Amino acid sequence: MIPIVSIVGKSDSGKTTLIEKIVPELVARGYRVATIKHDTHGFEIDREGKDSWRHRRAGAHTVVISSPRQIAVIRDADRDLALAELRDRFIDDVDIIISEGFKRDVQPKIEVSRRERHSELLCTEDDNLVAVASNRKFELRVPCLDINDAKGLADIIEEKFLRGKREADIFLDIDGRWIPLTPFVKTFLTGTIRGMLTALKGCENPQRIRIRIG
Amino acid sequence: MIPIVSIVGKSDSGKTTLIEKIVPELVARGYRVATIKHDTHGFEIDREGKDSWRHRRAGAHTVVISSPRQIAVIRDADRDLALAELRDRFIDDVDIIISEGFKRDVQPKIEVSRRERHSELLCTEDDNLVAVASNRKFELRVPCLDINDAKGLADIIEEKFLRGKREADIFLDIDGRWIPLTPFVKTFLTGTIRGMLTALKGCENPQRIRIRIG
Repeated sequence: MIPIVSIVGKSDSGKTTLIEKIVPELVARGYRVATIKHDTHGFEIDREGKDSWRHRRAGAHTVVISSPRQIAVIRDADRDLALAELRDRFIDDVDIIISEGFKRDVQPKIEVSRRERHSELLCTEDDNLVAVASNRKFELRVPCLDINDAKGLADIIEEKFLRGKREADIFLDIDGRWIPLTPFVKTFLTGTIRGMLTALKGCENPQRIRIRIG
Repeated sequence: MIPIVSIVGKSDSGKTTLIEKIVPELVARGYRVATIKHDTHGFEIDREGKDSWRHRRAGAHTVVISSPRQIAVIRDADRDLALAELRDRFIDDVDIIISEGFKRDVQPKIEVSRRERHSELLCTEDDNLVAVASNRKFELRVPCLDINDAKGLADIIEEKFLRGKREADIFLDIDGRWIPLTPFVKTFLTGTIRGMLTALKGCENPQRIRIRIG
């Protein structure tokens, strides 16, 4: 399961700016990073008049633009998805996800705060808070780093979420809906599917498995 | 498996314009449609300065933008993907995929041609050609429709790729949405469900089975 860390903070606290510092730091350490941006108001993407924009305007539920270097998917949603759902449906091939602005989600969080903008923190009561990045000192049960200390924040992320954390997990999605699984069912399904696949030639020891049916 | 039909044609033949006519026609008939646009030269998406644009510029392999109505995913690719791969990795929840510009792919094709631009067709030798849309008449082994006949083209698409797929021996509907199944999975599901049900008292030889859950 790809770990998720959310950069949260009050408005104009510098979330995007902090992400712009953390991502290259993690990439430089050899990790592949995805980001998720939450946009409560909806967003405009693509450019008016482009073919893909015309496809979508014509009523396409999903538009995919494919090139040898980059792929884009723009699609309808019928509700706000949780971070875990976004990860499980739309992200693979990365080591870690840094998200921005999902303050009510249950994933681990780093709060960013600028003294010029706000004097209080958002998440001091949040059990998922793992660190604070600020140009002000807070007395907290979690580390409080300087707002520009991307290296220190990357150290925390690496230590807590990346080192030795690549254990197998299983995710089940039926008709676009994420199905929560109990530990027993997870073990059962993982064991059964791995067991079946070892019967196939060249699949004697499958690690990363993706199956889509229908 | 979601069927794919490619709209192909020489440059400036009117591919996007035709898609803008076919998509609403299929949507009006109750189908959910995805489109795939091939862009050999790479493409620019998102807008300079936006948060998601800044995430990607900072080195994120994948950027997801999530809102309650729309989700966008922009990610690196390491090669040109075939239509079937794009479908299997990035598209679900739709009945049919209309793609634009994958002339060398093996999926069924409709060629569009405008007499003002080109006198010859691209795909006459292509076994996957199912129809031509043109403002000129061609003598072909496949139907040649008027370039504006979205209704006629939607009829062909519906007849060849959508109808009959809905009257199969097993029909799976989740939340009002038809779930496409491969012949193998159909057989597999039918056999498994029938097999399970024969274990129930009074269901030793189930024929017509209707299951409603929830």
